[in-house]
Amino acid sequence: MHTHTHSVGVVASRIAHFDKPTKLKSGAVLESYDLVYETYGTLNATGSNAILICHALSGNHHVAGYHSEKDRKPGWWDNMIGPGKPVDTERFFVIGVNNLGGCHGSTGPSSIDPLTGRPYGKSFPVLTVDDWVETQARLADYLGILQFAAVIGGSLGGMQVMHWSIAHPRRLRHALVIASAPKLTAQNIAFNDVARQAILTDPDFHGGDYYAHGVVPRRGLRIARMLGHITYLSDDVMGEKFGRILKNDTFQFGYDVEFEIESYLRYQGDKFADSFDANTYLLMTKALDYFDPTHHHRNTLSQALKPATADFLVISFTSDWRFAPSRSREIVKALLDNERNVSYAEIVAVHGHDAFLMPDPHYHDIVRAYMEGIAP
Amino acid sequence: MHTHTHSVGVVASRIAHFDKPTKLKSGAVLESYDLVYETYGTLNATGSNAILICHALSGNHHVAGYHSEKDRKPGWWDNMIGPGKPVDTERFFVIGVNNLGGCHGSTGPSSIDPLTGRPYGKSFPVLTVDDWVETQARLADYLGILQFAAVIGGSLGGMQVMHWSIAHPRRLRHALVIASAPKLTAQNIAFNDVARQAILTDPDFHGGDYYAHGVVPRRGLRIARMLGHITYLSDDVMGEKFGRILKNDTFQFGYDVEFEIESYLRYQGDKFADSFDANTYLLMTKALDYFDPTHHHRNTLSQALKPATADFLVISFTSDWRFAPSRSREIVKALLDNERNVSYAEIVAVHGHDAFLMPDPHYHDIVRAYMEGIAP
Repeated sequence: MHTHTHSVGVVASRIAHFDKPTKLKSGAVLESYDLVYETYGTLNATGSNAILICHALSGNHHVAGYHSEKDRKPGWWDNMIGPGKPVDTERFFVIGVNNLGGCHGSTGPSSIDPLTGRPYGKSFPVLTVDDWVETQARLADYLGILQFAAVIGGSLGGMQVMHWSIAHPRRLRHALVIASAPKLTAQNIAFNDVARQAILTDPDFHGGDYYAHGVVPRRGLRIARMLGHITYLSDDVMGEKFGRILKNDTFQFGYDVEFEIESYLRYQGDKFADSFDANTYLLMTKALDYFDPTHHHRNTLSQALKPATADFLVISFTSDWRFAPSRSREIVKALLDNERNVSYAEIVAVHGHDAFLMPDPHYHDIVRAYMEGIAP
Repeated sequence: MHTHTHSVGVVASRIAHFDKPTKLKSGAVLESYDLVYETYGTLNATGSNAILICHALSGNHHVAGYHSEKDRKPGWWDNMIGPGKPVDTERFFVIGVNNLGGCHGSTGPSSIDPLTGRPYGKSFPVLTVDDWVETQARLADYLGILQFAAVIGGSLGGMQVMHWSIAHPRRLRHALVIASAPKLTAQNIAFNDVARQAILTDPDFHGGDYYAHGVVPRRGLRIARMLGHITYLSDDVMGEKFGRILKNDTFQFGYDVEFEIESYLRYQGDKFADSFDANTYLLMTKALDYFDPTHHHRNTLSQALKPATADFLVISFTSDWRFAPSRSREIVKALLDNERNVSYAEIVAVHGHDAFLMPDPHYHDIVRAYMEGIAP
């Protein structure tokens, strides 16, 4: 099992069931729901060493380790989390959870609605970052965790971290906001809406009730993912990796793959369309659009972050054009306006937004050093 | 007719028919074809004052003026071309032509194939910038124009100008390359391929023969256009114009329009899908991808531009991230390597790639001054 060295090893997912009706930000009520989660490491006697990992658009609860001895693909942040890794599971008790609305085991649009016996489909409510934080807080209650040593997330995950710090300031000592933004720009929303329109107008979408028709809106989801991928990578790294390299020796003068970049994107789109639920994708992009902690604070981020008491580590990546470093600096400035303890690192990286998932040594050293400074 | 002041006024399109078989870059042969064109101003006695305008992705031959007294929408570059305008039709004889493969009157995929009596559809050959320049040269022959005073184009139009200068150096005295690039990057190709895949996978595409089915791949074309629009605008101008402004007073928590930017993009997509041919769109994006004058010159642009003898004006726009100023500077450098006369202007503009179509006074002054220096 040499691939599993320095890993948390084989892990099992668990389900927490919640049957107290939950009123969501939209006004809709969910009678009951499941959250699927994993934990790595050991909760200490005082329960003070727990860490929550919040996932991004296509992430899930399987953050680290493997699901079996034969499993070759570890959790999505395995390079960051494990024994001796920057988030050290020998010191911390780490929790990964699939957000409500997900498609990896938590209740979502593809789950069976107990009231009808059929998948929720279009009747599943639209969710917000606030709803996720509230349901994560219930999971913390369920696990007996009063206060997290840290809540950590990248991208959409970073938005959840920000909301945790505002809504439940006493429930976390540290907030790690990575490759994130205080709210989406018009361009961010525009990319999301193109992705959504591709799914919503796919004839196989059937208004969201495609499960009943035995189809999935594969075409739309594939386009959405291809587009997403472009925004995750920098122009430079695409140039370095693919440039204008041809698949064949000469131009084919047709609509099959000509350039390697086309082959890569179509492959990524196909893979995703075969494994992810389209309704979940829609819902995740809406949560991104809606997130705006300044909405009730006259668009002032300093005002919005006033309740936060956690110490912050904010990290951005130079080539990230989806959530550029300037967006992270907005967060840092607002925290400093409130005289919060905030460390900020702008990592020189070529990988664009995806850099937050990469094992860049400088990036990992910064997270490691920060985490070493946290008393478990 | 006050809206038509300072305009070339009411203009009529004409058709030139070519029935000598044309071998295209792909190897395919087109037996005959039409080109639709318009002219503004008067060709002088020596035929030395002609100017060719090359259009971009969704452009056409209707560059200036109106099609009737009641017409309210002028040609796409009416702010640039007309009596007393930067490209002054009182001095120059200006030609606009719809490229071969277009959908505005030149022979294209939606035209009737004389061999079958049905629309070409998928049998219409893939075209390149080289093919366009050769067919434009035939139109020049047809009109008795041996040498253009200038060939002018923005974006994909600028690529045609570059190829003119390389393939027919003695047939133009000046080359105006605006908001263009020497060849697409991987990211540029990637955006094009997402747009193409949206069209190609639309069930109404029918392999390109949708005409026979009485449908059009509207969904795919709409997505393609929405995506294109994002890349034509800068992040900043989108922020200024739309920001996070809501369509309604509060969030609707559904998939209808929430933000003004969504409304704008969907409207643009709908409008385009109702008026443009999907096969033409596909073909135009392929021509963009294929264009690479360095392909047979060891990727060296200086080598590729060696045959050019024209004087150049190269213009870029600071906020254009589709074809950034750095791409124009590559062209300028290659021309200087060849000791060509080249003027370069980098216009401070917020509108992104679309800035080349906008009546920015500084931009127009530069074009005007350059054109005034050209002996008709």
